[in-house]
Amino acid sequence: MNDKIRIGIAGHGNLGRGVEKAITQNLDMELIGIFTRRDPAHIQPLTAGVPVHALADVEKFRDGIDVMILCGGSKSDLPEQGPALAALFNTVDSFDTHAKIPGYFEAVDAAAKAGNNTAMIAIGWDPGLFSINRLYGEAVLPVGETYSFWGAGVSQGHSDALRRVPGVKSAVQYTVPLEKAMELARSGSRPQLTTREKHRRECYVVLAEGADAEAVRRAIVTMPDYFADYDTEVDFVSEDELKTQHSAMPHGGFVIRSGVSGSEVKQTLEFRLALGSNPEFTSSVLVAYARAVMRMRRMGDIGAKTAFDVAPGLLSPKSAADLRKELL
Amino acid sequence: MNDKIRIGIAGHGNLGRGVEKAITQNLDMELIGIFTRRDPAHIQPLTAGVPVHALADVEKFRDGIDVMILCGGSKSDLPEQGPALAALFNTVDSFDTHAKIPGYFEAVDAAAKAGNNTAMIAIGWDPGLFSINRLYGEAVLPVGETYSFWGAGVSQGHSDALRRVPGVKSAVQYTVPLEKAMELARSGSRPQLTTREKHRRECYVVLAEGADAEAVRRAIVTMPDYFADYDTEVDFVSEDELKTQHSAMPHGGFVIRSGVSGSEVKQTLEFRLALGSNPEFTSSVLVAYARAVMRMRRMGDIGAKTAFDVAPGLLSPKSAADLRKELL
Repeated sequence: MNDKIRIGIAGHGNLGRGVEKAITQNLDMELIGIFTRRDPAHIQPLTAGVPVHALADVEKFRDGIDVMILCGGSKSDLPEQGPALAALFNTVDSFDTHAKIPGYFEAVDAAAKAGNNTAMIAIGWDPGLFSINRLYGEAVLPVGETYSFWGAGVSQGHSDALRRVPGVKSAVQYTVPLEKAMELARSGSRPQLTTREKHRRECYVVLAEGADAEAVRRAIVTMPDYFADYDTEVDFVSEDELKTQHSAMPHGGFVIRSGVSGSEVKQTLEFRLALGSNPEFTSSVLVAYARAVMRMRRMGDIGAKTAFDVAPGLLSPKSAADLRKELL
Repeated sequence: MNDKIRIGIAGHGNLGRGVEKAITQNLDMELIGIFTRRDPAHIQPLTAGVPVHALADVEKFRDGIDVMILCGGSKSDLPEQGPALAALFNTVDSFDTHAKIPGYFEAVDAAAKAGNNTAMIAIGWDPGLFSINRLYGEAVLPVGETYSFWGAGVSQGHSDALRRVPGVKSAVQYTVPLEKAMELARSGSRPQLTTREKHRRECYVVLAEGADAEAVRRAIVTMPDYFADYDTEVDFVSEDELKTQHSAMPHGGFVIRSGVSGSEVKQTLEFRLALGSNPEFTSSVLVAYARAVMRMRRMGDIGAKTAFDVAPGLLSPKSAADLRKELL
């Protein structure tokens, strides 16, 4: 008898491939199929023997899949696929447009309830593990300040912004947290930190032929929202150097809660991630939450959920008794 | 109408006083009474107007208290009070004898179920927040190693052991994590670290009159279980110095999960606490979990629980919608 958790993957970019790999690390899970909007014949699964299907046909597979992991992007894929697939399957996704989470939650919640499914949204590390740590910090130390720092790591949004600058052929942007600000956050002095004090931005740019380097640099460092509020460094590199030195996707960051307990004693919580690969780590988090989704669905806990709704024990393949014995 | 969470405190040592102070930081809570085995007339509440009662009379207060926070010790108080009070009230406690948690859980679970109550055990930072982070790390990165480091901070158990050495009048012991071991744990090389490699022990000792310092030092550093497996430093100090320099109760530590995701990429999670006062922080955690206990009881989720069973959102006074908007 096979009682593994049967997983489907919708979308086979970096995140989808990461989920494929993460499933091989979780022995209680089985990958049932990959669903794509592209031509399935053009998708090469990493896992031998896993079928690839057209996403348009996904409804046929309702009975064979316990949890569908949505690996599309937050900008255009998930706003459509999130609700559509939550109507058919239990789902997990990494929707990460913070400002749009409340609206997305409502849309997915309605669809999931209509389909009698459990749909976990906004999973990964931020939103996700960072959010949980912001919450633990605030709940345990109600009098205090919370600081989130990101990096050092590649920001896709900022890299995309660089690539839209005329004269830029290709580019990668690193967000770098400033050590001095982190020390202040940890110090217990509860400083108010400006955008510029918290992070700086490092840009590695390949110029298009004939482009004016100084004009490109100026266009970058004065770009509102993305760069103007930061100390931004622009380094021009060759296409070859960009490929060999800047193609990994490291990331990470820090959540620091600095507060005081009852008699004004300083207390500090800090959560830190140092990630060799941002998409692979996000995938690993998605897979752990897929386990929780299946359990919550079995308990009848349907509708849209976030990391705030998941008891930690539901993430582990171990029994509650083993967890108490081994990890408590 | 008063719809605050009505809290009782059982025991008024460091932890109970910390809970009193923490309640003042949580505006949705109200301290109803303090219960003591001592003569209530000898207890001085920090909160004006809070009544102190004999613990023997606690049953009379069943209807007026939503959650009883148990502030006794794990060695002799809680094994008896935990089950007894869980039969009467929803409870939270900080039972921290790791090896005895499974048995304690069973005893409290039976009592809580018989009384139709929810009883949260082993809350604090270790067990508690550290346990959760061990679980998150293992669930998200199933291939990896978990390291717990404690300190720098005062260990009550080790300080007590020092005080039992003949010739010792008074003493304080600090557990100090070794930076080199933490760096190795973070490095992703997943080392096996020995006890001696992870922590060292610093002892500040006041000698009894006429005691032989060298004999005391030898008795300490060779003491099995407590000191023999560590590099232990013994400093002899005056009673005055011990009181002025070593009476704070700082503590803290680190949980590090070092693992690899699917394609052998290194990924590291780290949770860190730097605590100005160990008992006050533990108290703050107990109070946040009291909020969760009341909510779980209202949902009908009775019996013994641990931090592994508590969805993070239940700890916050904010609504789920506000949490999604503000912290996710």
